[in-house]
Amino acid sequence: MGKEDMSISQNVTSALSAIIPTFAGGTMDRADQVRVNPERLKEAMMRPNARLLKLDGLNPVFDAMGDLAWGGLYDASPDNDLLLLGIDDGDRPCFAELTGAGSAASTGDQRLWQSLSFLPPEQAGIYATARSLVDWHARHRFCSNCGQTTETRKGGWSRTCTREEGGCGAEHFPRTDPVAIMLAECEGKVLLGRQARFPTKRFSALAGFIEPGESIEGGVARELWEEAGIKVRNVRYIASQPWPFPSSLMMACTSETDDPTLTLDEEEIEEAAWFSLDEVKAALNGDEDAPFIAPPPFAIAYNLLKNWVDEQDA
Amino acid sequence: MGKEDMSISQNVTSALSAIIPTFAGGTMDRADQVRVNPERLKEAMMRPNARLLKLDGLNPVFDAMGDLAWGGLYDASPDNDLLLLGIDDGDRPCFAELTGAGSAASTGDQRLWQSLSFLPPEQAGIYATARSLVDWHARHRFCSNCGQTTETRKGGWSRTCTREEGGCGAEHFPRTDPVAIMLAECEGKVLLGRQARFPTKRFSALAGFIEPGESIEGGVARELWEEAGIKVRNVRYIASQPWPFPSSLMMACTSETDDPTLTLDEEEIEEAAWFSLDEVKAALNGDEDAPFIAPPPFAIAYNLLKNWVDEQDA
Repeated sequence: MGKEDMSISQNVTSALSAIIPTFAGGTMDRADQVRVNPERLKEAMMRPNARLLKLDGLNPVFDAMGDLAWGGLYDASPDNDLLLLGIDDGDRPCFAELTGAGSAASTGDQRLWQSLSFLPPEQAGIYATARSLVDWHARHRFCSNCGQTTETRKGGWSRTCTREEGGCGAEHFPRTDPVAIMLAECEGKVLLGRQARFPTKRFSALAGFIEPGESIEGGVARELWEEAGIKVRNVRYIASQPWPFPSSLMMACTSETDDPTLTLDEEEIEEAAWFSLDEVKAALNGDEDAPFIAPPPFAIAYNLLKNWVDEQDA
Repeated sequence: MGKEDMSISQNVTSALSAIIPTFAGGTMDRADQVRVNPERLKEAMMRPNARLLKLDGLNPVFDAMGDLAWGGLYDASPDNDLLLLGIDDGDRPCFAELTGAGSAASTGDQRLWQSLSFLPPEQAGIYATARSLVDWHARHRFCSNCGQTTETRKGGWSRTCTREEGGCGAEHFPRTDPVAIMLAECEGKVLLGRQARFPTKRFSALAGFIEPGESIEGGVARELWEEAGIKVRNVRYIASQPWPFPSSLMMACTSETDDPTLTLDEEEIEEAAWFSLDEVKAALNGDEDAPFIAPPPFAIAYNLLKNWVDEQDA
């Protein structure tokens, strides 16, 4: 079977591992060859079936069925830059407006999260892409290298500082910030912590940005040392998730330690503790007498804990 | 054993997996709590044993032993911002000057690469961190949000747009760009490709940036589809490597496919082919009659191929 006979969606779906966190299931053809070709990009914009993702600032807009809401491309303001999200399975070019970010609901907004939780994986992936990109453009209207204004290029996948306007000509690409989120295991228990801003009784996996000059494994060890004072070995990668608040790539890992003694960084971590298999199961089940409240199912920390339980039971 | 009794180095070293690519072996205490505390930062700068990493633009400077060359902090120009690289095993604060990036040797510079290849892992990690950060500061002297000038903060780990000078007050952090680099396996062979700019006969693993709204696994599948026209399943993460040219985080993966038919993106890939275990072994050995030249040992593509050979032989 040649490339022409099948869609990218079939391809990406089959590549995904057993663990597909929320936002990680996007399969739309991102049509990179259309982005970089001004004629093909214009042709895509002119197609009668081209669609425009409806957004309310950075927030999704849902239709009556609870799906992402779309309009026609004629709904776009004429002076707006357009972002090519990709070409969908119905061969429809899909766009979003780069309008400036506008309002964003708090990530603590329960109604928003409920609605996002019910989205099919494909749609959650589309929203994640649109949210990160719209926000990135709004915060990158100027060139970090010379201070002049930048312009949208490549169907919304880059911004260029234009020499004609006295700029340096630098091209800037959307950023994606790798974040390690990790369990440590010791004597059959896992380490979870809570930040002061968490809801009551909520515990989750510790996390931190990977820094320049650091591997994922090195970052996991550093974060667990800095925040909890434990030394770990055998860092194992489990799964990843795009997290568009604003542009993280969450990389979930496990690790092991022999010494459970904790020394907390109290600026970062209000409380941390080791939880047993039964305690984690009770929390994931939402049992009333569970010793903590598990992270919500749309967070990769939930997938990480569930994977740990499955591995213990295997 | 409590946190005070051991160094972060011991911790990070034991966390690293069996595969430690070049640049991925950094273990120095990054001293995040010193960065964010102006008094502790100043105290570190005033210490008589504080060290300054010598750089020639973005290039390393080596001493007579082939190690990274260091000076005292009094060698720094008085008007230069300083980057706190960390506190080394000898309790010496280690800095680099944020001088503006200046010259950078081509990544094809054989002498530079030979010298880097002989560095102990710890030193290669220090250079990787310094190179990425010095370059990032040089390219981020202006605020991407409002165009005003930015100033160094947190010991060189952020830049802030200052309200006093009419700026918006946005804080900007160094960027790290996640890149997937991947093998595909089919019928006991692996897919490698070459770009037009590669040296003659060199083949390596295909690679591409992870985009906003995408998981690592989704990015691997997309790249292999876009560049080689194959659909893959069972994407497996193998190892990671910071790659400071300028600021990538390489994430090496394998994947599988049933159909070896290739459809190349000829803009990106000049040639691609499936290579057998014996052919890959011959290339890794540097045999004269090998059908291709393997990627160099400092590239994670080398580790990825070696890991594949080891898995086949296991």
